[in-house]
Amino acid sequence: RRSLKIGMLPADGIGREVLPGAKAAILALGSSIPKMEFIDLLAGFEYFTKTGTALPDETVQILKSECDCALFGAVSSPSRKVTGYSSPIVALRKKMDLYANIRPVKSVSINPEGRPGVDLVVIRENTECLYVKQETQTVGEHGKEARATRLITERASRRIGELAFKMALERPRKHLTVIHKSNVLSITDGLFRETVRAVPTLPGVDGKYDDVTVAEQLVDSAVYRLFREPEIYDVMVAPNLYGDILSDAAAALVGSLGLVPSVNAGDSFVMGEPVHGSAPDIAGQNIANPLAAIRSAAMMLRHIGYGDGADRIERAVDSVLREGKVLTPDLGGKSKTSEVVDEVTKRI
Amino acid sequence: RRSLKIGMLPADGIGREVLPGAKAAILALGSSIPKMEFIDLLAGFEYFTKTGTALPDETVQILKSECDCALFGAVSSPSRKVTGYSSPIVALRKKMDLYANIRPVKSVSINPEGRPGVDLVVIRENTECLYVKQETQTVGEHGKEARATRLITERASRRIGELAFKMALERPRKHLTVIHKSNVLSITDGLFRETVRAVPTLPGVDGKYDDVTVAEQLVDSAVYRLFREPEIYDVMVAPNLYGDILSDAAAALVGSLGLVPSVNAGDSFVMGEPVHGSAPDIAGQNIANPLAAIRSAAMMLRHIGYGDGADRIERAVDSVLREGKVLTPDLGGKSKTSEVVDEVTKRI
Ligand SMILES: CC(C)[C@H](C(=O)O)[C@@H](O)C(=O)O
Ligand SMILES: CC(C)[C@H](C(=O)O)[C@@H](O)C(=O)O
Repeated sequence: RRSLKIGMLPADGIGREVLPGAKAAILALGSSIPKMEFIDLLAGFEYFTKTGTALPDETVQILKSECDCALFGAVSSPSRKVTGYSSPIVALRKKMDLYANIRPVKSVSINPEGRPGVDLVVIRENTECLYVKQETQTVGEHGKEARATRLITERASRRIGELAFKMALERPRKHLTVIHKSNVLSITDGLFRETVRAVPTLPGVDGKYDDVTVAEQLVDSAVYRLFREPEIYDVMVAPNLYGDILSDAAAALVGSLGLVPSVNAGDSFVMGEPVHGSAPDIAGQNIANPLAAIRSAAMMLRHIGYGDGADRIERAVDSVLREGKVLTPDLGGKSKTSEVVDEVTKRI
Repeated sequence: RRSLKIGMLPADGIGREVLPGAKAAILALGSSIPKMEFIDLLAGFEYFTKTGTALPDETVQILKSECDCALFGAVSSPSRKVTGYSSPIVALRKKMDLYANIRPVKSVSINPEGRPGVDLVVIRENTECLYVKQETQTVGEHGKEARATRLITERASRRIGELAFKMALERPRKHLTVIHKSNVLSITDGLFRETVRAVPTLPGVDGKYDDVTVAEQLVDSAVYRLFREPEIYDVMVAPNLYGDILSDAAAALVGSLGLVPSVNAGDSFVMGEPVHGSAPDIAGQNIANPLAAIRSAAMMLRHIGYGDGADRIERAVDSVLREGKVLTPDLGGKSKTSEVVDEVTKRI
């Protein structure tokens, strides 16, 4: 077997502290997966402040030509408007055509702050909506006027819809909720909704999704109900921005953003990414929760065909959580990032 | 004193069941406020299905020429795309220039489902963002492509910002959080953020807001933190869509959307509106919670100068909630809408 090449993009803040944990977890799998090569790649807001670019071409080049998959840490947001800056994670998703952001949120019963009964996955369209970043500013009669374009295409809605139906079918409950705001955005969200709902009628699908129950929710009431009765959700599929908000909302239900992993997935590449941000307030203290990054590594491995390795990592994480002894402060614990990593790798 | 004219727009579903409760509460104030005239006005999705228009010109005309203020119930959303339909509440906000949607969310300690310590107000810009409803659809190489414009102007951001600072100054904690997503929408949300933050430096403001502490949050992490530590928020100011989502999220914290009131306010008109929707699943059963509508009536009265009347209504609502005996099913009670209304009016 040839070796696996994993692009490592820690980027900013705690991204740099949690990615080594993900690497350690993968290495702990030993010879059960191919030999691994980790390629460190540059990106991030801090890199931008030094060089004027947040995502060097070389990083994208190497990801495309050499890597089998990648892990991204987290990126800081400028606290003031910075000319020329553009989020590298948004750019990566687009440049690598990672059109789906898959964010499973599941409660670990032991976690005192989490709610029991949360077991859902947010499938977020990852390339369009307001994230196309087509913005303009003009000066009108009453001052500045800024406009952004929100793009929703049939093609992107269909492929995210197909993925959502596929995932719903694989899960025990086979339930899919389509999130939109078509009572206001009748054309853009109308297109998203109709296109996703039409997936079971696509040519060649032939009854494949007959067992999937489809519901829908307006995004505002989806957030409300997510908080009030999270157990009603199984798979949620949403346009980009709603998916961004919903996955953070869901993360709050399981006790900490520091637990929630994701992958950015395309047809030919996958990049793991913890849902949390760069957390400048706690960066550099060795107290960031590495579990979201470690779980993201597992999801990434599963995606490229190493489900057994992914299972081992996930079981190790779950057992550390269930035991509840070695936890970072976001979960009410007193352990360091590195101690949690050690505890997980020991159990892999 | 001349009489007050209140436009009543029950619209759809439970809107028709809760607005009579609001009316009863106002009438219970007796002679402490001017004589009242309630003018029933047409609007809504059901009205659209009968007539082809969701908001007749006459309704807007009468509101503008005859009414001192108004109360809106709730509007149903079409479950499929309906040509020619456009939300009457969105249209009313724009046509009456009701540029601020003010949504206070406060926990009543007695409510078992609510969290203690929530006492915040969402100030939602009410006229622009994606709600300008400028949408187009074209057919490209890969199928349909839909685009919506998100408009953020300096003028609208400034006036909502001024209101937000004013409200923050009036509240004990004097804390304001500006909500945006300028890490992605650097131009539109950048303009919103910078304009709101610049309010204290406007000509003539002269240190007036020195006591207001200003913070900011990206909308996704704002929702996360709202669930995790709602007590950090006092006044939140947000562009239209984020405000829509945030106020529903906040409502979840206090036990029920059926408790959360709002006013749509402009410089010369105010319209009360419960935050909940038309709830077709429970409509017609006399079990909808009338308290959000009653509180919206109180807010409306306060806005037009009848603070004493508003206080009396609000105290009556609070006492019914604290006692916890006569509650609708959304709060775990068994009472009917009309019983809750009676209980409140008795105490006014
Ligand atoms: C950092 C930011 C651009 C990003 C997003 O909005 O997608 C983040 O919030 C996320 O969810 O991965
Ligand atoms: C009915 C709908 C158009 C409306 C909105 O999105 O503003 C509602 O959700 C609200 O919050 O008043």
